[in-house]
Amino acid sequence: MSELTKLKEQYQTYLQANLNLDMTRGKPSSEQLDLSMALLNDVSAEDFGKGAKDYRNYSVPALLSGLPEMRRLFADVLDVDADQIVVGGNSSLNLMYDAVVRAILHPLPGDVLPWGKSNKVKFLCPVPGYDRHFNICQSLEIEMINVPMIGSGPDMDMVEELVANDPLIKGMWCVPKYSNPTGETYSDETVSRLSKMRTAAPDFRIFWDNAYAVHHLTSKHDKLANIFAACKKYGTTDRVFMFASTSKITFAGGGVSVFVSSYKNVVWFTKQMANQTIGYDKINQLRHINFLKNAEGLHQLMDKHAAILSPKFNEVDAVLTRELGKDSQYATWNKPNGGYFISFDTQPGCAAKIVKMAADAGVKLTKAGATFPYGKDPYDSNIRIAPSLPSVAEIKQAMEVLSVVTKIVTLEA
Amino acid sequence: MSELTKLKEQYQTYLQANLNLDMTRGKPSSEQLDLSMALLNDVSAEDFGKGAKDYRNYSVPALLSGLPEMRRLFADVLDVDADQIVVGGNSSLNLMYDAVVRAILHPLPGDVLPWGKSNKVKFLCPVPGYDRHFNICQSLEIEMINVPMIGSGPDMDMVEELVANDPLIKGMWCVPKYSNPTGETYSDETVSRLSKMRTAAPDFRIFWDNAYAVHHLTSKHDKLANIFAACKKYGTTDRVFMFASTSKITFAGGGVSVFVSSYKNVVWFTKQMANQTIGYDKINQLRHINFLKNAEGLHQLMDKHAAILSPKFNEVDAVLTRELGKDSQYATWNKPNGGYFISFDTQPGCAAKIVKMAADAGVKLTKAGATFPYGKDPYDSNIRIAPSLPSVAEIKQAMEVLSVVTKIVTLEA
Repeated sequence: MSELTKLKEQYQTYLQANLNLDMTRGKPSSEQLDLSMALLNDVSAEDFGKGAKDYRNYSVPALLSGLPEMRRLFADVLDVDADQIVVGGNSSLNLMYDAVVRAILHPLPGDVLPWGKSNKVKFLCPVPGYDRHFNICQSLEIEMINVPMIGSGPDMDMVEELVANDPLIKGMWCVPKYSNPTGETYSDETVSRLSKMRTAAPDFRIFWDNAYAVHHLTSKHDKLANIFAACKKYGTTDRVFMFASTSKITFAGGGVSVFVSSYKNVVWFTKQMANQTIGYDKINQLRHINFLKNAEGLHQLMDKHAAILSPKFNEVDAVLTRELGKDSQYATWNKPNGGYFISFDTQPGCAAKIVKMAADAGVKLTKAGATFPYGKDPYDSNIRIAPSLPSVAEIKQAMEVLSVVTKIVTLEA
Repeated sequence: MSELTKLKEQYQTYLQANLNLDMTRGKPSSEQLDLSMALLNDVSAEDFGKGAKDYRNYSVPALLSGLPEMRRLFADVLDVDADQIVVGGNSSLNLMYDAVVRAILHPLPGDVLPWGKSNKVKFLCPVPGYDRHFNICQSLEIEMINVPMIGSGPDMDMVEELVANDPLIKGMWCVPKYSNPTGETYSDETVSRLSKMRTAAPDFRIFWDNAYAVHHLTSKHDKLANIFAACKKYGTTDRVFMFASTSKITFAGGGVSVFVSSYKNVVWFTKQMANQTIGYDKINQLRHINFLKNAEGLHQLMDKHAAILSPKFNEVDAVLTRELGKDSQYATWNKPNGGYFISFDTQPGCAAKIVKMAADAGVKLTKAGATFPYGKDPYDSNIRIAPSLPSVAEIKQAMEVLSVVTKIVTLEA
């Protein structure tokens, strides 16, 4: 019996096993969410502050950017000044979307016209990347230009060339640490070149989605250079919009998000925010302050997340190595030091078929192409594996299915 | 000694009394916020739902518009269908702002071009009205046209004439019940005419800010006709965006907001919302469901608010009547059946001076002009009184000061 025939028989048994495994999104597991149950404890009446600043009430202008303790905590964790921090609601994606919309409607510091008055707006999109970033651009008719990730972040030769010559390139998405999905962390040189490069657009902004700033998986912690410090050195302090949140620290659906930027950008951001809202939920900020306490408390919590997550990431790697081989002819994948994803690259032209066959066998993976703008992977080869939600046993099953279908599709190609 | 001299002596004593009273905003008092402390009780683990729908986690598409129980509760309270409801975060203002921005960037059902592609966008603004509505327009360069409130809502002859002839009029702000600040509730005829009127713009929308839908002050409850039912009758079902929230029901800074509209508009609204956020805070929705339970529970809570608020409103009226006289030559004011404000109208040209003199004596009132677009009251006569936050004793002092300065300014004019 040929290898392919054997594999197809194996696939038949999977089809009959009625699997139902969802590895589509980077969601924390229930076990991780349980780590933050103390967040739900009663908040005591003494904590609210008095009179005009009562946190239960509408906000006051002094608290529009967030509770001082919350700004302090994020500042410590992200190594920035507290006055660079604007605290949002439960979603950093929402802050990113709103930042893009604001730049479309209101001139950024550095230019007199809003992006919306430009003939066209383009963004650089390191690929593979995060689908929800790309959705924001697509929904707002921003043209996306792929830039490959090369292990140290995006291909900086290409980035420099593009932004220097095209004034319509107004922005760039970056997940600089434990990148979604490649897991790589931008090198010091990449951070430095991003800060230093000349841009044809005076209102160019880097959307620095620091989603995995403290999300280590092992004791080996990647170090990301401080881009604000680098920008200061090169006189480009208004270039960066940083975003972060507690979504993968406390509750994914009930956390606290932040926008971090230069003084001028913070003024610009909060001016429009003041027309949009009287203030975000201060009670939830208070809960987070009480629960996390300080940067040290937050890092201790992240260690507990790592203890839950790392066996899952190890299992992905172990099964794939066992089934597909080390230095596999079928696919390559990374073993990240942090973040939420493993990036799995098949032979060109195979990813969509693999995802389809896996889905037919009850293993739902992120849609092939989702890691590229417009959902179009030019090589049809990248698959994002999200090991956080399923159990180790489920991951074992799912990776066995993935291995078998990868071999079938590759051999048939 | 002349009347004016006596009044000025009295004012001198106020100046020396070091008062510090803030009646600028419609904020609930601590006593009102205390009514909802049970909202902060532990939420039990069983409430979260399991697996993919775990409310602590990121949302799933089925929950993007809110938890079913939350939508049901608002539907019952607002007399609409649950599938007309989209639950937001802690701020209905935020939903309004986002709705305007979306209409600027994305064509509404009924037209092929977004408002932003129009030469200009205009909104009708019933006056006096809510300053934060006007801020949204001003910040987004929407021209505002004043329409007087006439006791039964806005002057409908003027509204009909304007919207029928000017296709650039794309929207209209309405606080239809216990209006901010006049306290009036739109008559059935007004609601009917708003539903029926011909609009030159096919993508005209009424922003129906139902902020005080259940916020009665006395046992006499104003009845507001159901505008969705009226629109259905006249085939204008896509005309209305309704907004509401629990801001003045539970916690002003930590409540739950809703957008309510036709099926087509809800699809339009949530399509863009899905690019903006994975979902609003579901834990806070759960808290509200557990605490309020149902429409009946919510109405019982509102009775408790009324019991706290009505003595304050009565005190305003009592002091003003005593000091300025019934059918006063100095000013007129209303005695609303609900809402958060009393609208105080001075002789023309007096309001700004009165507010200034009161502030100098430590009584902060809403800035004169704030109830009009661009902060410009054409008659300089409207002052919004917000009695909710101070105590009855403080209101007594503040209204005595207001009475004295009103008399001084009027007599000097």
